[in-house]
Amino acid sequence: MRVDGRKNDELRPIHIETNYLKHPEGSVLITVGDTKVICNASIEDRVPPFLRGQGKGWITAEYAMLPRATEQRNIRESTKGKVSGRTMEIQRLIGRALRSVVNLELVGERTIWIDCDVIQADGGTRTASISGSFVAMTIAFGKLFEKKAIKEFPIHDFLAATSVGIDSELGEILDLNYIEDSKANVDMNIVMTGNGEFVELQGTGEEATFSGGQLQELLSLGEQGVKEIIEMQKAVLGALADKVLEGVKVK
Amino acid sequence: MRVDGRKNDELRPIHIETNYLKHPEGSVLITVGDTKVICNASIEDRVPPFLRGQGKGWITAEYAMLPRATEQRNIRESTKGKVSGRTMEIQRLIGRALRSVVNLELVGERTIWIDCDVIQADGGTRTASISGSFVAMTIAFGKLFEKKAIKEFPIHDFLAATSVGIDSELGEILDLNYIEDSKANVDMNIVMTGNGEFVELQGTGEEATFSGGQLQELLSLGEQGVKEIIEMQKAVLGALADKVLEGVKVK
Amino acid sequence: MRVDGRKNDELRPIHIETNYLKHPEGSVLITVGDTKVICNASIEDRVPPFLRGQGKGWITAEYAMLPRATEQRNIRESTKGKVSGRTMEIQRLIGRALRSVVNLELVGERTIWIDCDVIQADGGTRTASISGSFVAMTIAFGKLFEKKAIKEFPIHDFLAATSVGIDSELGEILDLNYIEDSKANVDMNIVMTGNGEFVELQGTGEEATFSGGQLQELLSLGEQGVKEIIEMQKAVLGALADKVLEGVKVK
Amino acid sequence: MRVDGRKNDELRPIHIETNYLKHPEGSVLITVGDTKVICNASIEDRVPPFLRGQGKGWITAEYAMLPRATEQRNIRESTKGKVSGRTMEIQRLIGRALRSVVNLELVGERTIWIDCDVIQADGGTRTASISGSFVAMTIAFGKLFEKKAIKEFPIHDFLAATSVGIDSELGEILDLNYIEDSKANVDMNIVMTGNGEFVELQGTGEEATFSGGQLQELLSLGEQGVKEIIEMQKAVLGALADKVLEGVKVK
Amino acid sequence: MRVDGRKNDELRPIHIETNYLKHPEGSVLITVGDTKVICNASIEDRVPPFLRGQGKGWITAEYAMLPRATEQRNIRESTKGKVSGRTMEIQRLIGRALRSVVNLELVGERTIWIDCDVIQADGGTRTASISGSFVAMTIAFGKLFEKKAIKEFPIHDFLAATSVGIDSELGEILDLNYIEDSKANVDMNIVMTGNGEFVELQGTGEEATFSGGQLQELLSLGEQGVKEIIEMQKAVLGALADKVLEGVKVK
Amino acid sequence: MRVDGRKNDELRPIHIETNYLKHPEGSVLITVGDTKVICNASIEDRVPPFLRGQGKGWITAEYAMLPRATEQRNIRESTKGKVSGRTMEIQRLIGRALRSVVNLELVGERTIWIDCDVIQADGGTRTASISGSFVAMTIAFGKLFEKKAIKEFPIHDFLAATSVGIDSELGEILDLNYIEDSKANVDMNIVMTGNGEFVELQGTGEEATFSGGQLQELLSLGEQGVKEIIEMQKAVLGALADKVLEGVKVK
Repeated sequence: MRVDGRKNDELRPIHIETNYLKHPEGSVLITVGDTKVICNASIEDRVPPFLRGQGKGWITAEYAMLPRATEQRNIRESTKGKVSGRTMEIQRLIGRALRSVVNLELVGERTIWIDCDVIQADGGTRTASISGSFVAMTIAFGKLFEKKAIKEFPIHDFLAATSVGIDSELGEILDLNYIEDSKANVDMNIVMTGNGEFVELQGTGEEATFSGGQLQELLSLGEQGVKEIIEMQKAVLGALADKVLEGVKVK
Repeated sequence: MRVDGRKNDELRPIHIETNYLKHPEGSVLITVGDTKVICNASIEDRVPPFLRGQGKGWITAEYAMLPRATEQRNIRESTKGKVSGRTMEIQRLIGRALRSVVNLELVGERTIWIDCDVIQADGGTRTASISGSFVAMTIAFGKLFEKKAIKEFPIHDFLAATSVGIDSELGEILDLNYIEDSKANVDMNIVMTGNGEFVELQGTGEEATFSGGQLQELLSLGEQGVKEIIEMQKAVLGALADKVLEGVKVK
Repeated sequence: MRVDGRKNDELRPIHIETNYLKHPEGSVLITVGDTKVICNASIEDRVPPFLRGQGKGWITAEYAMLPRATEQRNIRESTKGKVSGRTMEIQRLIGRALRSVVNLELVGERTIWIDCDVIQADGGTRTASISGSFVAMTIAFGKLFEKKAIKEFPIHDFLAATSVGIDSELGEILDLNYIEDSKANVDMNIVMTGNGEFVELQGTGEEATFSGGQLQELLSLGEQGVKEIIEMQKAVLGALADKVLEGVKVK
Repeated sequence: MRVDGRKNDELRPIHIETNYLKHPEGSVLITVGDTKVICNASIEDRVPPFLRGQGKGWITAEYAMLPRATEQRNIRESTKGKVSGRTMEIQRLIGRALRSVVNLELVGERTIWIDCDVIQADGGTRTASISGSFVAMTIAFGKLFEKKAIKEFPIHDFLAATSVGIDSELGEILDLNYIEDSKANVDMNIVMTGNGEFVELQGTGEEATFSGGQLQELLSLGEQGVKEIIEMQKAVLGALADKVLEGVKVK
Repeated sequence: MRVDGRKNDELRPIHIETNYLKHPEGSVLITVGDTKVICNASIEDRVPPFLRGQGKGWITAEYAMLPRATEQRNIRESTKGKVSGRTMEIQRLIGRALRSVVNLELVGERTIWIDCDVIQADGGTRTASISGSFVAMTIAFGKLFEKKAIKEFPIHDFLAATSVGIDSELGEILDLNYIEDSKANVDMNIVMTGNGEFVELQGTGEEATFSGGQLQELLSLGEQGVKEIIEMQKAVLGALADKVLEGVKVK
Repeated sequence: MRVDGRKNDELRPIHIETNYLKHPEGSVLITVGDTKVICNASIEDRVPPFLRGQGKGWITAEYAMLPRATEQRNIRESTKGKVSGRTMEIQRLIGRALRSVVNLELVGERTIWIDCDVIQADGGTRTASISGSFVAMTIAFGKLFEKKAIKEFPIHDFLAATSVGIDSELGEILDLNYIEDSKANVDMNIVMTGNGEFVELQGTGEEATFSGGQLQELLSLGEQGVKEIIEMQKAVLGALADKVLEGVKVK
């Protein structure tokens, strides 16, 4: 049995609170078990230099943790004067994932800034960030659409993420919390769309390896988990969920 | 009349939620109007180099804002690679203020880290940080005391802060929100103890000055505001509030 | 009796040498007891980005110490690769204080850079920097005025600063030297104008507090000290002092 | 047909030159098509702080490019003063991959530093770095073993990496060069061991997605490519290749 | 006798391989004994801000070592986050030396970036960098000239460098390797042109001094060494060597 | 005729004021024409890590300019967050030069910190720094010797520096001021000892070269200039000058 009593293919309780803060165009507090992440989407009316004059938009993400989001206090990256490799890896992942379901041509010369700030960490902060940011981004695009700043809705599919892993005793498990993650031999993050396509797959055996058979089992668990999360996204997005389904995919 | 309908000597609604996050020894979410600050207190079992071997403790504070705590998104200080002058000024102020009501000899060789993270800003973030951090710190010391890691309670008085300022039309006003702060000619932060003594006084006329008479009026408004906040601190601290009143002051 | 034989309300000997270095538009060496600060004012014909196109000027200050200005050698901030919180606090204070007596509209799109470099430190370096910089800035504006680059003299009042504090044995004292500052329970910097208005008030009880009565006594001592320093500024400025008195205050 | 005339499942010509430089304990120049990477392994007789006193070793990697390894000159990261997110991601990947086939307990308190310096880049620099570093590391361990500094050979399996991707016209292809990589919709790096287990799987759809069926095809191509590279590693390692096969896996 | 059997006035074996890498406009691997430096010349179609609009070009150099170019592994400067004083001194020297034989007016508004990357170090890396960079730069200018981007060949003389020094037992010696350099009392780098003029002379007695007579002997040795290296440059440059001799010197 | 009316072999007026500041063990203000440098020597009772436990001392130098030492205001290196290549080159030169006349074995495990702060610049700041620092260092060693912290005087010769250069019209000239330096084709810094030996020779033709004959003329001018400066050092050092002459040279 898992440390918190879950079955191997069971997600932790997930809650997505929308309109969490007042300033951002989209603001979400996503709670996955004891992991809590504030996901804010901000719209800036210009794009980075490498995209200027092309008429298309950009989506970029930043990720951070409060110093005491964790069991032991961490030194702030602002105090250290640099952003760690882990942080950079995560923010590049979040940005890439979100861009995969957005038609950037329809966004116009705008940058969508996604800020994921983990206020409490208990494993799975990067996948929670992706699942929450998708909702924040959708709300932000909803506001642009409502005031007719964009003509067509630029999101063409749902997007969510979860983690899977291999425990030496329990085998393949879904949505690892911090204790499970620390013990796991293999850890894999899976980002998928509403129509069941893969966007990103990052499987790592830290001082361990995994076979082709184990990989298939992990993929299947992940797919099921992402589907459940996307149902929750649809529920909190309400009418906006329909907009996503109508989104025009870039060809 | 003030922009939000308050009287000149009226505080904004204040709410102090304790045990906000699960990891920190003391964790508080303080809400002052639309300003929201997470104040966490962490206990580390060692002191900075300059204090080692003296048997006394230390209290230090860090302050940051989420990028979208504000109307316009701010660049993260970790991304910039350095902490701004404003941030340093504020964290030095918070640390200094808290140390003034703590008998560091009774703390033992421990550092209390105070982390103030503003998740939503609407003026008065530094004074809210002080008022909230006092509660978080008191709870953290309460835990140390409960498990008998310290023999005497090291806090010997309450501590809270508020801002006062001069509006060219309304005159002296208490607890300025962001709009009021932007318009004010003079802005003063006042930190006081439960017995009505001053701990810190920072009055600034940005491209303006103030007379001795105006100063007296500001001091009087601030004193009243701090008193009200301390009453709220007592209410949320419950039995711990009594500990503070029994605290032994260093001679 | 004070450590250097002064009365409680007695300033240290002050000397202001003008035209100290040849390149700056205004250059002053101010000596306050054993504290020596070179204050240079430079005029740059453009303003920072946030002010461009508004037709008004800006005043900004930088502050540093020679490594061996102090009893113990300090590491250079250029070697450390970053400016300390203390330095940033001081330079923000100096800039703010000077701006309070200048009508920036009359300056045109120019930046006045104030550089305060402490070559010998014995307490009160930030207040000496303000008192000295005021003279350097006035001389620099005098040159602009003389060559008719500005039409009206932009300074509308004198400005000086001093420190006051509370010694546990002597009570309230004026213009603390380094030894006195190290022992003081309370330390307050007071910046005032020629007409007796406050510009900045920064009172701090490091691990101590102060009562309302003590505050009034400190304010009174500070006011007297600033008045005496302004008389010296007038003496060294000569004819330029009259220009200051004719300066047009911004409404 | 592919841009350089290869079949979809065909690797570029690979050459592994051992003992390339004289100072490092293991030194390899790996050439994969026009991609050239110097892989050096250095042995340091101590471990990072988090491992001290545990009697086990550590493997860490650094990765860089010469400024003109690329078509356009890149700014040096030393000049920029910071290492990019891409670089950090790659060096974390290389270190993690190598550690997966080494029994760190057998290494003793030593750090193996892997330096991968790309002197010419034409796609696949990170996978070439892994394949080349494995050889450099094996040679370095060979020297430790020869002089009996370690008793048992710590590597327990071969390790190599390659990339696979999806081209919109050609479909799934193996070992992408720079032009192919720029056009690919999906890019996946696969790190595998000699016995056919996965170590790391990083599949990314940049503004695109991929189906389960495509994933299976990519995995199959990658597995075949890695097998071929491992045969080349065996050839250049000679007698040391047998040591790897005898390596004792940690249980 | 010298440690490697050379006579006092004997250079180490030198090899200059041209067209070493495919991307740079000029690419050379220079080998001087066991010292190996990749010298790449890149052409950028703009100049630094201080030269814009003047119609002339610029030449600038960067220098680095692979971490394991040396006996002991060095920490990367990108990891340290700053370039060392030694590196800056060397890159300023290389740039200055190359500019002395180039008529920048004939280059047009272009920057020639010289990158010297030491892959193996055994003394004399900075002088080898100069001798090798001259060849790389000449090749790059040859390409500009060939496609008629410049009308006249901008290099007007050959340029090479070597080191000389004083050994306490052997006296004055030419082209010091690492062991000799470590023992030498005096170390001098000499940069000269094809017509025997000095470009740069840097003689240093680290905890030692040298007489006028010793100086003359060092200059004579250096002159001879540089002459020999220039002959090798001519040999590898072939027809381009004639272009250099036709170069028009700026008056 | 030279711009300031001097003859080609004439130094500018030089003044060396000792005991300039009160805290440093040795403090000098050296004035060379309009160039003014504060040279402070500080004694620290420990050595850098690479020398620990060897019983010998170390001398290191730092160099900086006030922002407005120059005609145009320069940005502080502390603000830029890094020390420039030029500054590093100069501070390495000063330290190396001073170490050449000191027997570090006699210093004991102490570091002598030399701080050269240019308060006004008009050419020749690095050579003035060396000439002034020698005096400051001698005074500092004098204090160590007086209180018997060292047994033998560790300085064994005088040391001074000057610049020479070639003007296209005037030919070889001594001690260039800023205007002359800007126009000169060749610039050479010469550091010599009291007994006429060379310590450092740095000759540079920026976009120019110089012949063997010109070099001899420059060396002769420099030697004469250094001799005159050493006479001034002797005059201000008084009795300490005799100590230098008695100093025991390391063998």
